[in-house]
Amino acid sequence: MYRLVLIRHGESVWNKENRFTGWTDVDLSQKGMQEAKEAGNKMKEQGFVFKYAYTSVLKRAIKTLGILLDEMDLLWIPVEKSWRLNEKHYGTLQGLNKREMVEQYGEEQVLIWRRSYNISPPPLELNDDRHPKNDIRYQEINDECATPATEALVDTINRIIPYWENNIRTKLIENKEIIIAAHGNSLRAIVKYLKNIDDDAIVRLNIPTGIPYVFEFDDKLNLSKDYFLADEATLAKLMEEVANQGKK
Amino acid sequence: MYRLVLIRHGESVWNKENRFTGWTDVDLSQKGMQEAKEAGNKMKEQGFVFKYAYTSVLKRAIKTLGILLDEMDLLWIPVEKSWRLNEKHYGTLQGLNKREMVEQYGEEQVLIWRRSYNISPPPLELNDDRHPKNDIRYQEINDECATPATEALVDTINRIIPYWENNIRTKLIENKEIIIAAHGNSLRAIVKYLKNIDDDAIVRLNIPTGIPYVFEFDDKLNLSKDYFLADEATLAKLMEEVANQGKK
Repeated sequence: MYRLVLIRHGESVWNKENRFTGWTDVDLSQKGMQEAKEAGNKMKEQGFVFKYAYTSVLKRAIKTLGILLDEMDLLWIPVEKSWRLNEKHYGTLQGLNKREMVEQYGEEQVLIWRRSYNISPPPLELNDDRHPKNDIRYQEINDECATPATEALVDTINRIIPYWENNIRTKLIENKEIIIAAHGNSLRAIVKYLKNIDDDAIVRLNIPTGIPYVFEFDDKLNLSKDYFLADEATLAKLMEEVANQGKK
Repeated sequence: MYRLVLIRHGESVWNKENRFTGWTDVDLSQKGMQEAKEAGNKMKEQGFVFKYAYTSVLKRAIKTLGILLDEMDLLWIPVEKSWRLNEKHYGTLQGLNKREMVEQYGEEQVLIWRRSYNISPPPLELNDDRHPKNDIRYQEINDECATPATEALVDTINRIIPYWENNIRTKLIENKEIIIAAHGNSLRAIVKYLKNIDDDAIVRLNIPTGIPYVFEFDDKLNLSKDYFLADEATLAKLMEEVANQGKK
């Protein structure tokens, strides 16, 4: 049997300010660190012992992973970081307040930018400091996808699935129990793929922050079950909070 | 030109209690975290931008690296952890107080255990919890050296040099600027190798904690110079502190 845990990073300083973050490398808030710590304790209690871990190249995910592994006394396991696990790129929206955007463009347009499967926000210009071509961490990657100026969810999926197939899948088989600490949309991509969720339904799936999402597979790597490590009431409350971020 | 920085982890909770640590996985003290932070700031000021990092599988080194990379805004770079960079294994001395050992066995015997090139402390029994064979992190490594019951400095050197030659060396050439966060004796091994220091002299070299030790190489990877990122007075004081730990 194989076990994979997905975890969405805890609250960042921009989640708190309700701003579009995307590839902006903002830090965790105090609350975000606390969420990571609690997630680590919960997984330790439940007997999880990861042998390998993945995360993005963004510090809110890297730190979430570091904090929870420290709680589990597993800081020594290998950690692989990849831009392919980054959040969806939000183009020119990065840094803007979600509520202000709702007032300016209306709830519907903002919901499209946030949740459309294949419509992306307006792209960044190449001379914009926020463009990945101007960020040292993407400069030496020989892959055009590593420097998107914006993304729709489908683009995020298209850069993650090959990484799953060529890399994560093998590591899961080798190590039996692994964890991926990443972002709302990069985890949506993985969940869509693993559960074969259709394009319309996946945009409505809200993954709460800091709650371990467990996937169990049989020895042929067929998904046997998936569940969150949280009680029903906590879960319902958290998912509603995420869904309400784009409303007035 | 290539640059390598060696950094010895900041104060651990056992350094503070003056106990032999070796492979025991003790945490950093508050002071140790502060040392790592200051080291990160200093390297950032001096324009260091690492592309790759190494550390041991012990949390005091892993956390030192994490804290300093965070200060440098470089948490996203690849980090490779290896037991080969662990501290020297101190056998049955692990956990015991250095000063008490001096009172019991005399300064000379303790100095031999601490600093002899080829005499190792008494080995751990296989049924001792402290033996690496009983630690999950070394269980799946197919290398007899990964589970020593004790080590002299020469044993530490013998497990590190192949790692330098088969791995670190190549990564230094590829990445041009790398850092290794490790331990007093594992760093001694690397310094001995790079500077061709003889067996008697290396045991007298005291590397201070938290001070970046910079090695510059020419394009043929010949060492051109090495220096600490600290003023002379600070250095002399720190080195004396390390040397005095084993005295009454």
